[in-house]
Amino acid sequence: MSEILREYLAVAERLAVAGGEVLLGYVPELAKVRTEFKGRPTELVTVADRAAEEVIVQGLLEAFPDHAILAEEGVLTPKGRASIEDAEHLWIVDPLDGTTNFVHGLNYFSVAVALAIRGEPVVGVVHAPAMGRTYTAARGCGAHCNDRPIHVTDTDQVAAALVSTGFSYNRSESGADDNTGRLAKALHAVRDLRRFGSAELDLCLTAEGSFDAYWELYLAPYDVAAGSVLVHEAGGQITDLVGGDDWLYGGQILASNGALHEAMMALVGGPP
Amino acid sequence: MSEILREYLAVAERLAVAGGEVLLGYVPELAKVRTEFKGRPTELVTVADRAAEEVIVQGLLEAFPDHAILAEEGVLTPKGRASIEDAEHLWIVDPLDGTTNFVHGLNYFSVAVALAIRGEPVVGVVHAPAMGRTYTAARGCGAHCNDRPIHVTDTDQVAAALVSTGFSYNRSESGADDNTGRLAKALHAVRDLRRFGSAELDLCLTAEGSFDAYWELYLAPYDVAAGSVLVHEAGGQITDLVGGDDWLYGGQILASNGALHEAMMALVGGPP
Repeated sequence: MSEILREYLAVAERLAVAGGEVLLGYVPELAKVRTEFKGRPTELVTVADRAAEEVIVQGLLEAFPDHAILAEEGVLTPKGRASIEDAEHLWIVDPLDGTTNFVHGLNYFSVAVALAIRGEPVVGVVHAPAMGRTYTAARGCGAHCNDRPIHVTDTDQVAAALVSTGFSYNRSESGADDNTGRLAKALHAVRDLRRFGSAELDLCLTAEGSFDAYWELYLAPYDVAAGSVLVHEAGGQITDLVGGDDWLYGGQILASNGALHEAMMALVGGPP
Repeated sequence: MSEILREYLAVAERLAVAGGEVLLGYVPELAKVRTEFKGRPTELVTVADRAAEEVIVQGLLEAFPDHAILAEEGVLTPKGRASIEDAEHLWIVDPLDGTTNFVHGLNYFSVAVALAIRGEPVVGVVHAPAMGRTYTAARGCGAHCNDRPIHVTDTDQVAAALVSTGFSYNRSESGADDNTGRLAKALHAVRDLRRFGSAELDLCLTAEGSFDAYWELYLAPYDVAAGSVLVHEAGGQITDLVGGDDWLYGGQILASNGALHEAMMALVGGPP
């Protein structure tokens, strides 16, 4: 099993890096829009996002013509569009996670490529081109950053924990949980909170031990699929916010080093 | 005036970079404590902090024997300890801003060196050694990042603004404002919020136009003195949280691109 996963991982890494090159190619032009025209280059970012996705999706179609692909335009399969459930091998692609950071000239953005087999993510690559970091993991093969093994922390005291979270685009919609209640509760218990702005990278920093835990609401599968493999292979734990397994498609996620999982669930858990 | 300020700036930059070298020297050992011993290297960080401060303070004493220095151990003057108000030339030094990030292996930390003349910061250097960025500014000479001129944004719509904030160490003390009320209010109005964890760097990113505004409570002068020169020289505005000028010693700060200042004050202003 792990032999074939390593082959999938190698392709995922190659394509994530290629996608990252595409994004980096737009950085000087983005900076020009910001500094010379004092504007926000949102249209240009859409162009960059699409161009990176094109490179990755084309690469996957060539390498694995029998596999399905979940990207921003829906699910592609060899037989055309189909539902996610039909796919034995499903590649989940986010060509640009941390879009707002990318727009604002912040380096904390990434390209994420994951493979789920029968619905379970087993290969994950999160490549942060402007940070010079590539996070890779495959089921049973460990988690790595730039080929160096990484591991979650042993922190078992919430008071010592550095915890990350995020705020959803839909936070102001009627009936949405804006996450501020959970944040206020956590803030008084943990060492400190961070909000960096890329779910995939937050998962990687949890896998790497810079964060002890991370939670967020209203996420899509492509926001967490790759990073989840990193967390699991680095020895961490992932559930949804009621302690169940519906974190990939359910939209709510709590990732931790494991030792803190119950305590973090008590702090920030509960349905939105 | 600006000729002598440039000379002060050159010394401040040289010493901030020297302090940064000291900090970087501890990074491999810090990583070892985290990864091999699964611990938090808090004691080692104190050693690194003191060592960086020593280099900077000694350099300032040699370069400017007549100037006073505000560092963690209080105010040093040529005539011994004295109150801040006595000093015509007061150097304000933070050898390690973003301590928690440094402990947790995150690159977002900095060395800050500022000079206040008759209580007003006029020279500021914020050096982020692990990010490879050095922010410099002197009154009347503009603001720079790695010698490239920087400027605040022109964003005048709160809904388009990326805004940064922080949470104080004393947030859970009786009577303290934990900042979550302001955060919840801002969250529904702005494009998004960030919490990166270094006040000096947050001010520099505001000066550089990655953030449109930044606010925080319960800060010390050495958290903001250097970054404030960057914001001013980059065309931005700084007040305390009631719109007054007591942001250096008063502990509360709102920095913005200027265009957003009133709107941000309406959102997050008010006494703690």
